[in-house]
Amino acid sequence: MRLLADHELSDAARAVFDDIRATRKSDFVNNFWRALAHDPDALRRTWEEAKAVMAPGALDPLVKELLYIAVSVTNNCQYCIASHGAAARAKGASEAQIMELMSVVALANKTNRYAIGLQVPVDDAFKPTD
Amino acid sequence: MRLLADHELSDAARAVFDDIRATRKSDFVNNFWRALAHDPDALRRTWEEAKAVMAPGALDPLVKELLYIAVSVTNNCQYCIASHGAAARAKGASEAQIMELMSVVALANKTNRYAIGLQVPVDDAFKPTD
Amino acid sequence: MRLLADHELSDAARAVFDDIRATRKSDFVNNFWRALAHDPDALRRTWEEAKAVMAPGALDPLVKELLYIAVSVTNNCQYCIASHGAAARAKGASEAQIMELMSVVALANKTNRYAIGLQVPVDDAFKPTD
Amino acid sequence: MRLLADHELSDAARAVFDDIRATRKSDFVNNFWRALAHDPDALRRTWEEAKAVMAPGALDPLVKELLYIAVSVTNNCQYCIASHGAAARAKGASEAQIMELMSVVALANKTNRYAIGLQVPVDDAFKPTD
Amino acid sequence: MRLLADHELSDAARAVFDDIRATRKSDFVNNFWRALAHDPDALRRTWEEAKAVMAPGALDPLVKELLYIAVSVTNNCQYCIASHGAAARAKGASEAQIMELMSVVALANKTNRYAIGLQVPVDDAFKPTD
Amino acid sequence: MRLLADHELSDAARAVFDDIRATRKSDFVNNFWRALAHDPDALRRTWEEAKAVMAPGALDPLVKELLYIAVSVTNNCQYCIASHGAAARAKGASEAQIMELMSVVALANKTNRYAIGLQVPVDDAFKPTD
Repeated sequence: MRLLADHELSDAARAVFDDIRATRKSDFVNNFWRALAHDPDALRRTWEEAKAVMAPGALDPLVKELLYIAVSVTNNCQYCIASHGAAARAKGASEAQIMELMSVVALANKTNRYAIGLQVPVDDAFKPTD
Repeated sequence: MRLLADHELSDAARAVFDDIRATRKSDFVNNFWRALAHDPDALRRTWEEAKAVMAPGALDPLVKELLYIAVSVTNNCQYCIASHGAAARAKGASEAQIMELMSVVALANKTNRYAIGLQVPVDDAFKPTD
Repeated sequence: MRLLADHELSDAARAVFDDIRATRKSDFVNNFWRALAHDPDALRRTWEEAKAVMAPGALDPLVKELLYIAVSVTNNCQYCIASHGAAARAKGASEAQIMELMSVVALANKTNRYAIGLQVPVDDAFKPTD
Repeated sequence: MRLLADHELSDAARAVFDDIRATRKSDFVNNFWRALAHDPDALRRTWEEAKAVMAPGALDPLVKELLYIAVSVTNNCQYCIASHGAAARAKGASEAQIMELMSVVALANKTNRYAIGLQVPVDDAFKPTD
Repeated sequence: MRLLADHELSDAARAVFDDIRATRKSDFVNNFWRALAHDPDALRRTWEEAKAVMAPGALDPLVKELLYIAVSVTNNCQYCIASHGAAARAKGASEAQIMELMSVVALANKTNRYAIGLQVPVDDAFKPTD
Repeated sequence: MRLLADHELSDAARAVFDDIRATRKSDFVNNFWRALAHDPDALRRTWEEAKAVMAPGALDPLVKELLYIAVSVTNNCQYCIASHGAAARAKGASEAQIMELMSVVALANKTNRYAIGLQVPVDDAFKPTD
């Protein structure tokens, strides 16, 4: 899908871009939203979801960015690693934190396969007691 | 692979179990290690790695447990979700935190596919400046 | 693997290329088959399978192209998204249909992880009655 | 996460359940929503998205169910295969259609790996002309 | 899909079952083929492919079984791990070989994510010279 | 992460590079290790693991390279396919072996999805007898 420039946006898409700019206090709107703008409903739903889910809550926003990157590395989404890598750094992630994140992701991808391959049964101690 | 009981362990595997018990200050050794104990070298390497990677560092241990769960959910490792879900709760994770974690994982798995499917090119702003 | 030009094909591979051209009523043979042509048996098997599976049947060919794309996006196969995106458009897929496809793929990848992460048990109503 | 019974729902979650029942014209609410009900915002967002994305549009609802299943099989989400398998059958999917769906999913998962493993470059003919 | 018993097979499916039995020199036909038998064309194609691909060739059959298991563990296909685990043992795989296989699979799943997450560029030395 | 040149290495990272060079009897250190060198502990652990796991054992080193590639193709790790493809060729893999490897990987990715999609139950004959 071609990326849409500002002057090509439908009114519905423009309203979402306005909110992206207002929320982020920046004029920059990255390519992800410019591709999704072909479907204004999908654009609005996804932006509203991202804004709500990634906001401060029981988990802080930097932790959420790191979780997002952990998934994106596991799925091999180069765009998402780049965009949320930038977001994590903007929220204060250090190089040491990024490297530790990668080591946890690498370890989990490794031990996931030992558990699956060896068909390890769940311990009673880990089952819900109801 | 059959799970090994304590009396079936080789000396090399027993030494790792001793360290698991000493490190965790608990006599309980979960099934994952009892399956891996068939290969004492793999057992030792994996335990040493898990102990080092999941320890306090630039990221705190609870954040690391959440990252581990994010990967395990993406990979659908039921054993790992159960064991590290228990570990996260033991380290103080609240139900609200677990639910927010799931929403970040769900969002990332969704937006990863929009970015991949729409073949969104990485913004220059997200590229390393060198 | 290097792509094979027409003059480099074995007789067995050339016979498959002839059938690709006759079936598609086009001289163009895309790179996928030129890479696979190093193994004429794999080439023949895969072409015969693709020809049979993607043909009109209980599902129409455009629906099959969309299903193929849904899998390729989930697996992040850039080549397959490009080649079957072109095939879907050649079979009449509109931009609106492609965007809806992407939203279903994005939703399913999201809700798959909620179901896996929350370890939701299958409802009795969804189990086979036998 | 424990499944919530109707009498355990928060007001916000109950409002979503009311809409699920009204939209589907059925009193039955499946386990997926009962697990997600622990987080009423996630419940509402996900239901609103599913309702909009899976509705008739440029693609018909049965095609959307099949696309959803294609992703769920690729990701190995047993719950989602069961629930959307039931939904597809309720919308008229025949056994022959389900079997053809599986053959397209199987083929795509196969050819995705040939394309990735052989590192096939995208043909110029499949690139956007701009 | 319900598993088909021998007396429920179509003539086309029965012919494939006959070949499975003759090839394996055993009366036992495992559940995979009994599910696929609902679509005799898919059954025949898949059996012919499995018979050809898993046969002795440039790689020996046991190595092929191990490769098959490596993929199945990475994809978390419990059925395939069980059935090809049995096949590998029938072809002489030792417990030590199975454990080494798991360690290679675990290592690759780990280092794949380091390479993806750190966005490591391919070395010139690894590029085709052509 | 930027790739580290030799003169930028910490003492701990340099010691690992020395062992890589001594073990491989070559001055060339590929980009993977230059990216991981930002975290000397992760570098050392991963190198020690790779050296031990990929060494001759119950399985020979070429088989291990092929297993590594099977996982990397399934996960779509381009770097890993390139680097271990080179390693496999250096250890004597023929083009015919590489093509057969790809056909096993393709077949397994296909039949994995038939087994998952058709929800095939594991045969009693494949279950551990205890």
